[in-house]
Amino acid sequence: MKHLFKTLVVFATGITSVFAQLPEPGFIIDEHTAIVITDPQIDFLSPQGVAWGAVGESVKENNTVENLETIFKLGEEYNIPVFISPHYYYEHDHVWQFEGTLEKLMHNISMFDRGDQLNVKGFEGSGADWLPRYKKYIEKDRVVVTSPHKVFGSESNDLGLQLRKQKIDKVILAGMSGNLCAESHMRELIENGFEVAVVGDATASAKLPGLDGNQAAQTNYKLISSKLYTTEELVKELKMLKKM
Amino acid sequence: MKHLFKTLVVFATGITSVFAQLPEPGFIIDEHTAIVITDPQIDFLSPQGVAWGAVGESVKENNTVENLETIFKLGEEYNIPVFISPHYYYEHDHVWQFEGTLEKLMHNISMFDRGDQLNVKGFEGSGADWLPRYKKYIEKDRVVVTSPHKVFGSESNDLGLQLRKQKIDKVILAGMSGNLCAESHMRELIENGFEVAVVGDATASAKLPGLDGNQAAQTNYKLISSKLYTTEELVKELKMLKKM
Amino acid sequence: MKHLFKTLVVFATGITSVFAQLPEPGFIIDEHTAIVITDPQIDFLSPQGVAWGAVGESVKENNTVENLETIFKLGEEYNIPVFISPHYYYEHDHVWQFEGTLEKLMHNISMFDRGDQLNVKGFEGSGADWLPRYKKYIEKDRVVVTSPHKVFGSESNDLGLQLRKQKIDKVILAGMSGNLCAESHMRELIENGFEVAVVGDATASAKLPGLDGNQAAQTNYKLISSKLYTTEELVKELKMLKKM
Amino acid sequence: MKHLFKTLVVFATGITSVFAQLPEPGFIIDEHTAIVITDPQIDFLSPQGVAWGAVGESVKENNTVENLETIFKLGEEYNIPVFISPHYYYEHDHVWQFEGTLEKLMHNISMFDRGDQLNVKGFEGSGADWLPRYKKYIEKDRVVVTSPHKVFGSESNDLGLQLRKQKIDKVILAGMSGNLCAESHMRELIENGFEVAVVGDATASAKLPGLDGNQAAQTNYKLISSKLYTTEELVKELKMLKKM
Repeated sequence: MKHLFKTLVVFATGITSVFAQLPEPGFIIDEHTAIVITDPQIDFLSPQGVAWGAVGESVKENNTVENLETIFKLGEEYNIPVFISPHYYYEHDHVWQFEGTLEKLMHNISMFDRGDQLNVKGFEGSGADWLPRYKKYIEKDRVVVTSPHKVFGSESNDLGLQLRKQKIDKVILAGMSGNLCAESHMRELIENGFEVAVVGDATASAKLPGLDGNQAAQTNYKLISSKLYTTEELVKELKMLKKM
Repeated sequence: MKHLFKTLVVFATGITSVFAQLPEPGFIIDEHTAIVITDPQIDFLSPQGVAWGAVGESVKENNTVENLETIFKLGEEYNIPVFISPHYYYEHDHVWQFEGTLEKLMHNISMFDRGDQLNVKGFEGSGADWLPRYKKYIEKDRVVVTSPHKVFGSESNDLGLQLRKQKIDKVILAGMSGNLCAESHMRELIENGFEVAVVGDATASAKLPGLDGNQAAQTNYKLISSKLYTTEELVKELKMLKKM
Repeated sequence: MKHLFKTLVVFATGITSVFAQLPEPGFIIDEHTAIVITDPQIDFLSPQGVAWGAVGESVKENNTVENLETIFKLGEEYNIPVFISPHYYYEHDHVWQFEGTLEKLMHNISMFDRGDQLNVKGFEGSGADWLPRYKKYIEKDRVVVTSPHKVFGSESNDLGLQLRKQKIDKVILAGMSGNLCAESHMRELIENGFEVAVVGDATASAKLPGLDGNQAAQTNYKLISSKLYTTEELVKELKMLKKM
Repeated sequence: MKHLFKTLVVFATGITSVFAQLPEPGFIIDEHTAIVITDPQIDFLSPQGVAWGAVGESVKENNTVENLETIFKLGEEYNIPVFISPHYYYEHDHVWQFEGTLEKLMHNISMFDRGDQLNVKGFEGSGADWLPRYKKYIEKDRVVVTSPHKVFGSESNDLGLQLRKQKIDKVILAGMSGNLCAESHMRELIENGFEVAVVGDATASAKLPGLDGNQAAQTNYKLISSKLYTTEELVKELKMLKKM
C-alpha cells in the first residue's frame, strides 16, 4: 500500500521533479558504526610516493592528508572503531598473467611493493608503509588492519568479516585513491549489506589528461552511498551527537 | 629481476611520463570470451521507462539503444555467448530498512518492479521487461539470463558462476546504467579474476544537476578495465579477427 | 592479557581436557534473528520427488517434514522473519561444461528443473515446487524467497543481502539437504559474519552405500555452528523466551 | 533434447539404480591446474602443535604428513603451480564478539597466533609456522602464499583471485583440517566455478567423542568434488600423464 502510494506521488508531481531533488537516505552514527580507511600509505599521500605524480594535485586540492588525520582523531575522541584496509603487492603478484590499466601501471611503478607477508625487511619507510604522521593512530590495539586488498575492492580480504565480527553494520569511509580503492570498497560494502557514508574530501584521485578521477569518485559517492560528508560536516555531526 | 628493471626505467625516464601515457593491457577476444549485458530493460532504455528523465539524454547522446542492438547482433554473427544480468525488484524488496541514494530513488519510482520470481502476471511490457526490439535476441536457448542483481553489482546473483560453468574468463561488457550497474559489474568481475573490456558507448548514465554519471563511468572504464572500446571499434576488431 | 590467561589455563589443565569438553558459544534469539530454510521442495521431501531414493530414509528417521512444518509455525507464532533459499535449475544450466558428483547426479535426474525465471508453465506441482503442506506458510508477504542458489551455497544468490537489508545478523537454519545445501549455507553465512544455529533434525541427507550424509552433516553442524538444536529444544527455547 | 533423453533413461532404469552408482564427473589435469594446500602448519601437523590432541590420531591414520610432502614433491616434479592458504590469528581477532564452536576452541588454545601481519617476532618455529619439513618446498618463488583465511573458507582471502590471475581453473586440494578448512575451501572454490579434486588421505580431521570429522570430510569430498584421489592414485595419474 505504502509502495503504491509512492508511485502515485511520482506521477502527480511529474517525473522530472523526482530527479531534480535526490532522496536523502540519511546516516545515523551509532555504536555499530566504524571508520574504514583505505591505503593511508606513503606511495599515495607523500610527494616521495610513486603515485604522487598522478594523485598529488587532488591530494592538495582536497586537503586529504589533514582531513584523514582529522578522521583518525575523531575515531579516538569518540571511540569509533577504526579499520584499515591496506594495499600490498608481494613478489608473486608480479607474475599475474593479466591486469587492468591502472593495475598494470601500479605494478610497473612498483607501487606498494613488499617481499611477502612473512617478510618485513625494508618495509619501514618504504612506499607501502603508513604515512609517518598516521603511525601513532594506527599502531594501537584498537585499530584493525585487515589483510591487503589485491585489486581495488575488499572482495579479496577480510574487511567485511572483521567488521561483522565486531557487530558493525555502518561504515564511514575515507582514504586513497578516491575512484579506485575507496570507491570499490564503497560498492562492495554496500553489496555486502552495510550502510555506507563517505567523507569526500578525505579522499583524492588520479587526474590524468582527459580523466578526472576525483570528479568520477565524488559523483558516484553522491549517487551510491547513504550520505556524502565533508570532513567538516562530520566533525560537526559528531560534536552534536555527543551533546545529545 | 625483471621487476627490478622496471623500477629503474621508471626513475630513469622520470615519474611524470609514466602517467602521461597509460599502459595498454590489451584484450584478445577468443573462444573463452562472452558478452555480458546489464539491464537491457524498458525502464532505462525507453521514453516510457520511469528512469528516462534521468538517463534519456545520455542514451540519446551515446546512441545506446542502437549500439546495444549491434552488440546483440555481433554475439549471433560471431557465436559469442551472451549473458544478461537483469534488475528486478520484488514486493519484499520494498521492506528493506535502508538504501543508498539511487537505490532509494529506484524504489520510490517503482523501477523494475515485479511481484516475485514465481509471478509473471503483468510483467510483459512492464518497465521491468526487455526493450521490445531486443526480445528476438534474448529469447533464444543460447542466451543465459542470470538471476537479478539486487543492488548494482553481480555480487548477489549467479553471473560469475554461470560464466565459469561455460569456461569463460573474458567479458565484453555493456548495458545500463553506465556508472551504476555496468560499472559495479565491471569492478566485481575484475575482482573475481575475469579480464574485462567495456563498450563505452553501449552504456548510458544518469545526468543530474552537478552530477554527470556518464563522465564518471567513462573515466572509470578507461582506468580500471583492460580495454575500452567504442561499438564501432568492436565491430572492426571482430571483422579483423574473422579474417585471420 | 585476557588472551594470555586463557593460554595458561590450557597448559595448566592439560591439552586433552580442552577437547573432551567443547566450548559452547551459545546463541541468543533476539529481534535480529531470522529463520532460513533451504530447498523445502517436492523433489527432496516427497516420495514423488526424484531424490527420495537417496534422502527418503533420512527424511523419515529425522522426521524432517513435520519438523520443518513446526519451524514454519514457530516463525509465525513468534514473528520471526522467514527466508527461503530455493534450488531451481533452468534450461541453460544444462549446458554447464563441468559439475561435481552430486551436481551431475541432480542434473541427470532432472531435479528442480524449471524452464527459466520468466517461465512458470508446468511449475505448479512439479518437483521444483514447494511441498504442498508448506505453501500456506511460504506464500505470505512476510516471507522472503531469495533467488535460487545454483550449486549448494548462498554464494550465488541474494540471501546474505536480503538478511542484511532487514538488519538480521543471526540465523536459525534448517532444510534440505543436510550435508549439501544446508551445510554450504551454514558455512557461507558464517564466513559472511552471521551467527548461525542449526536445527539438526529439521534437515535430512542422502544415505548411499558407504556414504552417510546425515552423519557428516550433524558432525559439521556441531563443530562449526554456534548452536545445534533439535526441533523440540527450539520449541522450548522460544517458549521460555516469551515468558521473560 | 539431450536433457529430455536423460530423463527418460532415469525412469526406464528405475530411480534406485541412479543412486547405487554415482556419476563420475572426472578430472583432467592440464596446464590450468594448480595444487592448493590449506594450513600446512605446526599446530595441526606436529605432536607439538596445540591441536594435536584432536587431530593427531587422524593425521597418523591417514599418513597425512608424508602424503602432503609427496604432493609438494609432485608439484615440483611436474611443474604444477602450488598455492598455500594459511591460517593466522592476529591479536585483534581475539576481540571478536562471537564465534562458532571450533572457532572458539581455536581461540581458546591460542592456535595459529601471531602478533599482526607486520610483525614476525616470535613467528619462526611457533605453532603458526610451516611444518619444518615443508619449508624447503614453500619458500620458493614459484609458490604463492595467500593472505590468511580467517574462519575456514577462502571467502576472506585472495586465493580465488590469485588462482584466476594465473589462469588456473582446476584445483587439486589437500591440507588441514579435513572437515573444516579443506572442506570449506572445496565448497567455496566450487561455488566460485573451479573444478576441484581432493586428495582424501592428504587431509586429516578432528576426532572427538561422538564426532568423527574424518568420516564427515571423506563423505563430503566424495559427494561434492569432481574426483576423490588417494595420494597414491594421484602419483600414478601424473606418471601416466607424463608418458602421454
